[in-house]
Amino acid sequence: MKTRSVLLVAFAFCVVHSVAAEPLASWNDGPAKQSIIEFVEAVTTEGSPDFVPVAERIATFDNDGCLWSEQPLYFQLIFAMDRVKELAPQHPEWNTTQPFQAVLEDDHEALAASGVEGVLTLVMASHAGLTTEEFDQVAREWLDTAKHPRFDRPYHELTFLPMVELLEYLRDNGFKTFIVSGGGIDFLRVFAEEAYGIPPEQVIGSSIKASFEMRDGVPVIVKQPEMNFIDDKEGKPVGIHQHIGRRPIAAFGNSDGDLQMLQWTTAGEGRRFGLLVRHTDAEREWAYDRDSHIGKLDKALDEAGKKGWTVVDMAEDWKTVYVPE
Amino acid sequence: MKTRSVLLVAFAFCVVHSVAAEPLASWNDGPAKQSIIEFVEAVTTEGSPDFVPVAERIATFDNDGCLWSEQPLYFQLIFAMDRVKELAPQHPEWNTTQPFQAVLEDDHEALAASGVEGVLTLVMASHAGLTTEEFDQVAREWLDTAKHPRFDRPYHELTFLPMVELLEYLRDNGFKTFIVSGGGIDFLRVFAEEAYGIPPEQVIGSSIKASFEMRDGVPVIVKQPEMNFIDDKEGKPVGIHQHIGRRPIAAFGNSDGDLQMLQWTTAGEGRRFGLLVRHTDAEREWAYDRDSHIGKLDKALDEAGKKGWTVVDMAEDWKTVYVPE
Ligand SMILES: [Ca+2]
Ligand SMILES: [Ca+2]
Repeated sequence: MKTRSVLLVAFAFCVVHSVAAEPLASWNDGPAKQSIIEFVEAVTTEGSPDFVPVAERIATFDNDGCLWSEQPLYFQLIFAMDRVKELAPQHPEWNTTQPFQAVLEDDHEALAASGVEGVLTLVMASHAGLTTEEFDQVAREWLDTAKHPRFDRPYHELTFLPMVELLEYLRDNGFKTFIVSGGGIDFLRVFAEEAYGIPPEQVIGSSIKASFEMRDGVPVIVKQPEMNFIDDKEGKPVGIHQHIGRRPIAAFGNSDGDLQMLQWTTAGEGRRFGLLVRHTDAEREWAYDRDSHIGKLDKALDEAGKKGWTVVDMAEDWKTVYVPE
Repeated sequence: MKTRSVLLVAFAFCVVHSVAAEPLASWNDGPAKQSIIEFVEAVTTEGSPDFVPVAERIATFDNDGCLWSEQPLYFQLIFAMDRVKELAPQHPEWNTTQPFQAVLEDDHEALAASGVEGVLTLVMASHAGLTTEEFDQVAREWLDTAKHPRFDRPYHELTFLPMVELLEYLRDNGFKTFIVSGGGIDFLRVFAEEAYGIPPEQVIGSSIKASFEMRDGVPVIVKQPEMNFIDDKEGKPVGIHQHIGRRPIAAFGNSDGDLQMLQWTTAGEGRRFGLLVRHTDAEREWAYDRDSHIGKLDKALDEAGKKGWTVVDMAEDWKTVYVPE
């Protein structure tokens, strides 16, 4: 007789798991930290009316201005600018075409105004034709060598320690953490695993199209000069649906680009959590909100008041801003 | 003094983990089963020259004809046909337009010939305008009630037990298992978690576009009558890149639609694994390959021989075909 039973025995084994002695250690005690802890305890306590099974504990995070800084320009825009300058000799037409002209003339205001689409246009033009592996290498080299003009540190070190702790705290409580960024998905994947502990398959972002080709009998994926998806504003809940297929129970952002993601997340049934990081700290980071070209926080701030979303006051709520050197 | 240490102590805790007494119990001993076990042992044994860290143990599976049957028609096509018949009174133009006419006249040959794009056209027409939650409910109801004409069982029970065991065996060995299907991503997600243990965020498939809208102040995502992505042939490695961002080390399919996924997977550095399920069992399932409209296996079969991919002979290699009732 053949047995068809798949699972016959169960046995226990142990894994060593490191846990923060004190979760959210870089957060000052206050309403923001308290709201986070209350939410996590409510959805993870068995028997609680707000209990959520592990498989449904999905949390989505914006990146620029939420997990790392975004001033004086989106970091990926600085990367694309450096790349455009490098390739400019082969593209004389860029001297008189926007947004390339602005890059070559270091006109930051024109660039900042070009927004997410400006970044993507530059990315498209400067990265199309590269295989995914070539792109990975170009981005890695830039991240390893380029330094932020104000802090003189590599860009990937300008991540927010309190937010990195928050990601860890959520994962320690059974959450799966995702990035949902207007930035380029392939660029984010180069550093997200090391900086945030978020693997490539949990990164959602804007993208250009790609195609599968054989080059000398070797299969490659090549980036194409055509927009695929803009993961910003209304695009964020759509990107979440396409990639995750499940509505998050918590969402974290910092600007009006995150409004729809927070609306979609917090409109679900059961207990939900929305949080906005407000840049209030000109001394340690930057202070900007309603009038900023980059990371404009206006409508979402009004809605946070109405919906009871947590608003982090960076100057008040964070003991430390950046991860230690 | 503030401490900036995030991780101060580590402690061990235990999880109970169930493991199959005998992995791949429904597989006969033979070269196919042996090749799977040899591969898994090589990439999971520390110190082995082929060792692969857990984070990189990505395995991708085609669905139709690989994880469940696909005869006499793709099951999702039968679902879309049932839906078209239901909606036909509101669409008199369908009586004279293909592929709708074929549906209403039960012309299976014309439908089979319409392939993945035919399915998607029907899906698009019959599901556009539904919110993602409405679609989910419609698909769930169909899966709960519709029965396969030959076996008189719900379609989601016609999954292959040996492949379900293979998914479990890989996961027990630290692999992350993904579906990469030409079928519709939202349809797959309705049953993949229960049938295969694969959560929605690990399902990749074809899709139509979606948009974020407010309906009476409630945010919804609405399916649109426009193709977004066809996850078949060259589309499979592209879909893998966009969703996972990491090249799999093992890929499993059954037709020429999987050729590029297997090429992309097995061309990576280090030890790789490719497998094709060959339908050789007319008695317990179906027998078809080079001349079939559905699941044509021709070029990929030739390439399997050259590349050393495993070819499963369903009649020889599987003790049991379907999961037990
Ligand atoms: Ca942002
Ligand atoms: Ca197939």
